[in-house]
Amino acid sequence: MKALSIHFGKVEVEMNTGVDIKDITNYLKASIRESNIMDGNLSAAVVGSTGSVTTIEYEPGVVEDLKKAINRIAPPDQEYEHEKAWHDGNGHSHVQAALIGSSVSVPVRKGELVLGTWQQVVVINHDNRSRKRTVQITIIGTQ
Amino acid sequence: MKALSIHFGKVEVEMNTGVDIKDITNYLKASIRESNIMDGNLSAAVVGSTGSVTTIEYEPGVVEDLKKAINRIAPPDQEYEHEKAWHDGNGHSHVQAALIGSSVSVPVRKGELVLGTWQQVVVINHDNRSRKRTVQITIIGTQ
Amino acid sequence: MKALSIHFGKVEVEMNTGVDIKDITNYLKASIRESNIMDGNLSAAVVGSTGSVTTIEYEPGVVEDLKKAINRIAPPDQEYEHEKAWHDGNGHSHVQAALIGSSVSVPVRKGELVLGTWQQVVVINHDNRSRKRTVQITIIGTQ
Repeated sequence: MKALSIHFGKVEVEMNTGVDIKDITNYLKASIRESNIMDGNLSAAVVGSTGSVTTIEYEPGVVEDLKKAINRIAPPDQEYEHEKAWHDGNGHSHVQAALIGSSVSVPVRKGELVLGTWQQVVVINHDNRSRKRTVQITIIGTQ
Repeated sequence: MKALSIHFGKVEVEMNTGVDIKDITNYLKASIRESNIMDGNLSAAVVGSTGSVTTIEYEPGVVEDLKKAINRIAPPDQEYEHEKAWHDGNGHSHVQAALIGSSVSVPVRKGELVLGTWQQVVVINHDNRSRKRTVQITIIGTQ
Repeated sequence: MKALSIHFGKVEVEMNTGVDIKDITNYLKASIRESNIMDGNLSAAVVGSTGSVTTIEYEPGVVEDLKKAINRIAPPDQEYEHEKAWHDGNGHSHVQAALIGSSVSVPVRKGELVLGTWQQVVVINHDNRSRKRTVQITIIGTQ
């Protein structure tokens, strides 16, 4: 039985005012190469309560469609309780991020991320200001 | 301290035009038995950007209710930017899948998946055509 | 190469009729301390099909905003197919929980959960009755 190893990575992405969506797949692939892990599991988790991660086909149309859908689910121009106490204008950002989720798991096989041909891992900034978003990467598997 | 081991599995499910929802719990259970892992964690991740995984009570009523809710969140008959470039009719499929998410983690204890009595793991096809959907399984734990 | 170890924890939370949202971050932190794991990954998964887990800024405003958003996505007063067979009044609960998801991964670094300053891990009860909710914790990493 091969011993398991673990590898840690971190992606920092400059992001525009939300909803902004950026492809981080190449960072995850680089992290797998660094790890020398061939078969296992990669977890990607965004740090911060107004960010989220998911997978999409990263092409301009889907990116735009997803932004619109996110803003329909928790519209920026609605009244939020968060605003009454904090007045920072990002009540909708918190709700959007909580609904999408902060982490995703992606299988690693033969040294590669297992994604569909048109499937990429993305980080989303929902905040009402530009942010540097950090995504923590943890890869566990056999070399 | 017991050494950790890792096991890989794969489920392939023939699925109808979306929204189609299928129970894959028994495949995950079989994979745990194969692995001989008693205590750990199972990750299930769908391959492809128009599929998703989650857990539900897999009974016909909830399945129908979830399909309706998914089609309310991103209705098939709405205009999508994705369509303007690609004309493949599945703009809504991409948005639906991204909102639900591509992976789920389930605890393994004493050789069993830890789910509620009425809780099953399901794969969802959101695409506007029938698809064979692949779910990758990674189990990490002690035997 | 350091050997990996695994640790198991469990949180039980008394919850009110849904939508009820409770912060479980301190339980997860306690579990990390018990584990002596310094660097790795923590998975938290709710047991039961009418519960979910996610991360939010746990302050009363956001908690209220998220409850409202969840009840907009799958309103309790709508007609659900689940009700026609089961008459237990929680059709909306199942749909809400499935859309948010049952698990979350959080990185562990230097013996601490890596979350944003205003980011907490929460369990959500969507059921139409008070419930004791169980969240299973699995931590994998190096000591």
